[in-house]
Amino acid sequence: MTRPTEIVETLKNRRQKLAQLISFPVILWSGKPSSRNFPHNTFPFRPSSHFLYFAGLPVEDAAIRLDSGKLELFMDDPNPESTLWHGVMPTRAQIAEAIGADAAFPKQDLASRATGAATIMVQDSATRAEQYMVRNMVRNSIQQSDDRYKEIDLELAQAIATVRLTHDQVALSQLMSAAACTMQAHLAGMMATPRAKTEAMVRAAMEGVLIANNMQCAYTSIVTVHGEVLHNQVYHHPLQPGDLLLVDLGAETASGWAADVTRTWPVSGKFSPTQRDIYDVVLAAHDACIAYARPGVEYQDIHLLACRVIAEGLVNLGILKGQPEDLVEMDAHALFFPHGIGHLLGLDVHDMEDLGDIAGYEAGRVRSDRFGLCFLRLHRPLRSGMLVTIEPGFYQVPAILNHPENRSKYQDMVNWDYLANFTDVRGIRIEDDVLITEGRPEILTAELPATPNIIEQIIQG
Amino acid sequence: MTRPTEIVETLKNRRQKLAQLISFPVILWSGKPSSRNFPHNTFPFRPSSHFLYFAGLPVEDAAIRLDSGKLELFMDDPNPESTLWHGVMPTRAQIAEAIGADAAFPKQDLASRATGAATIMVQDSATRAEQYMVRNMVRNSIQQSDDRYKEIDLELAQAIATVRLTHDQVALSQLMSAAACTMQAHLAGMMATPRAKTEAMVRAAMEGVLIANNMQCAYTSIVTVHGEVLHNQVYHHPLQPGDLLLVDLGAETASGWAADVTRTWPVSGKFSPTQRDIYDVVLAAHDACIAYARPGVEYQDIHLLACRVIAEGLVNLGILKGQPEDLVEMDAHALFFPHGIGHLLGLDVHDMEDLGDIAGYEAGRVRSDRFGLCFLRLHRPLRSGMLVTIEPGFYQVPAILNHPENRSKYQDMVNWDYLANFTDVRGIRIEDDVLITEGRPEILTAELPATPNIIEQIIQG
Repeated sequence: MTRPTEIVETLKNRRQKLAQLISFPVILWSGKPSSRNFPHNTFPFRPSSHFLYFAGLPVEDAAIRLDSGKLELFMDDPNPESTLWHGVMPTRAQIAEAIGADAAFPKQDLASRATGAATIMVQDSATRAEQYMVRNMVRNSIQQSDDRYKEIDLELAQAIATVRLTHDQVALSQLMSAAACTMQAHLAGMMATPRAKTEAMVRAAMEGVLIANNMQCAYTSIVTVHGEVLHNQVYHHPLQPGDLLLVDLGAETASGWAADVTRTWPVSGKFSPTQRDIYDVVLAAHDACIAYARPGVEYQDIHLLACRVIAEGLVNLGILKGQPEDLVEMDAHALFFPHGIGHLLGLDVHDMEDLGDIAGYEAGRVRSDRFGLCFLRLHRPLRSGMLVTIEPGFYQVPAILNHPENRSKYQDMVNWDYLANFTDVRGIRIEDDVLITEGRPEILTAELPATPNIIEQIIQG
Repeated sequence: MTRPTEIVETLKNRRQKLAQLISFPVILWSGKPSSRNFPHNTFPFRPSSHFLYFAGLPVEDAAIRLDSGKLELFMDDPNPESTLWHGVMPTRAQIAEAIGADAAFPKQDLASRATGAATIMVQDSATRAEQYMVRNMVRNSIQQSDDRYKEIDLELAQAIATVRLTHDQVALSQLMSAAACTMQAHLAGMMATPRAKTEAMVRAAMEGVLIANNMQCAYTSIVTVHGEVLHNQVYHHPLQPGDLLLVDLGAETASGWAADVTRTWPVSGKFSPTQRDIYDVVLAAHDACIAYARPGVEYQDIHLLACRVIAEGLVNLGILKGQPEDLVEMDAHALFFPHGIGHLLGLDVHDMEDLGDIAGYEAGRVRSDRFGLCFLRLHRPLRSGMLVTIEPGFYQVPAILNHPENRSKYQDMVNWDYLANFTDVRGIRIEDDVLITEGRPEILTAELPATPNIIEQIIQG
């Protein structure tokens, strides 16, 4: 098991960067598989992203101790009896070499090296129990840290967020692989649509591309003719000729790096005039936001730009009434665009969301309670090397549009009668993965068409 | 949300059957989704099988209390704010009607109705914590029950095993759906093989069939040219013309019922003479076991029959030397067939394996420590209505065949030199899902060919 020198060097650089930000040792656990319906029938193993970032390999039930840039690996050699079931697995020494470890020990040695070490809690409970035990902590609750560790665990989370906020070349190469496979899947989905009878059949064509490329879904796919349900995760609806299909599906590479892409296309291969009108508004917001994205720009301003472009577009279409700026000020855009313009992307599809808003929000900032801003997942000035999604949308959510308070508050801002002409637009979203650079942003998913004419051509074959 | 009367009646019958076996109330939790890399990015929700068996619907974060055949449902109505993300979800009243509940309450009312109720622990830790809390138990460890509950929890597990051991018509209808989709997937895999360059590409074609039919994998698929690794779960190997592809892949319906099927086919579309020789031995064992399966027969005797047929076949081929009966007595067959002939199948692919050997082993029986028997998952006399897998195999596992102890113990029983002619047979398994009936057993997966000629025809198109 040899790994290109570049990867080992990159891993060492990541550890050095972290070492410059903290003055205490760190232990990061990879985690164990979670059980599905019985202990041995597990979900596919997904290591902790923090472990993956600094260790690079998806090793089960391992831990690394980082101190001043040095790495100690803690894992057990594979059980000889497991060879029958799992074949010849790499040894501790082989893993240690592959990740550039400075030393390697059996797992039981971890406890003696753990006092005073900060950590990030993993997702699986068996490993979390181990994290408490190894650090000799009182286990008050499953989620909360002991007081003694609260401060350094928080400091570690902030330091890791700082390091992981921008991507190195090894990460970018993985992110581009995920993006390439995701684009291929979306094309396969468009091309499968004419033959597909249900959402599930389009999903199958798309996820098949991921599986064939040895990738997984970075998140539960959305493949729906009911795009107005934002996290729709059912796939049984039949495809009707007048439907728009909203597809939010992204690949994750074997070492954990994600893509996150949405396209919306007409089942028939032809947008209706009303669908195309709204689609063009969303696409205009999408293009404007990407053009505006550069280092130093506040991500919230990109969000607000999307809101203005959408408000302006809807005014031009006769759906909203008033000045776009005023409408945004009143959150009238959020009737149709109720979520944020996007989020960080990396090893997690919402990168580092396990740290709460530590990664997404600049120190000292907190979530707004405004209807039009509360769902914004990223509120920082952009920096070169950050990867973000840009994903404006338009939805007719009955729970929002029929809410008596909204009906009354926005009575004069919405042309409700005219809106009735657009019932064949339940949900549209266009989402790309955008790398912030010193020059123009680099769209990792640029080769997947978003313009309605080209999408129509692809579906029509 | 209406459900056919037959299903509601069946659910009530299942609860009545349970009520006849126990004299205390029971609470069964459905569970919550498990987190993957961050809390909101969850694995697809899989409810507890015991909940599914008695409640019939995959409801998240619900519980049922069973007492004397009556069912009380405990769940909260969907949060109005969740409508934006998840759409309109069924209410407590709707679920209660669909499952034939006798009463329905908010979840917080459960604690006041829980004292003295037995339960089965679910797989996700958040719900397990709730199970401890609701029953007001000291939480010594994550897995262990409190002493006060140990006895009734065990009694409940035994009663549930008794009820779930044989299948009613509603269950069989689901199991047949899973089997039908699984057969379709295997055919798709065979037909995709000539175009496929890697194991992953065959897997994609097969799992795509499941996804298109709104089913999931009942377990992590095995699609491998290294069948000698029994639980091989990597898919990156290229397909070479001389390879056999061993595929163990089964569907699970939306309400949780599983299929479990293995076929082994030649990548080139043509078995080599040595591959066909061994394949025929495994197929003979498969056919003999199914023909022998009937009520009253000990499942272990079916296992031993497979061992004898395999030993006899290998003697005839010149690989083993001696009398088949003697070879089996010495576990020589287990050099090549080291696992059990199969297991129970139902809502879990190893049905009720979460109860340990309570379901698989007749009361009073324990696992053998014999090399040739220790992996047997089922050790009961068969009964009409049981569904079992029959899955004989032949593997050349280096860790077994090269083990010095085995080399010495079986020195005179194996023609080691002659065995070297069979290096192109790394692993073969043939597995079907067999329903025990009063007459001939019913093979739910019978329409998927297992004979080498027909498999060759399908691959060659």
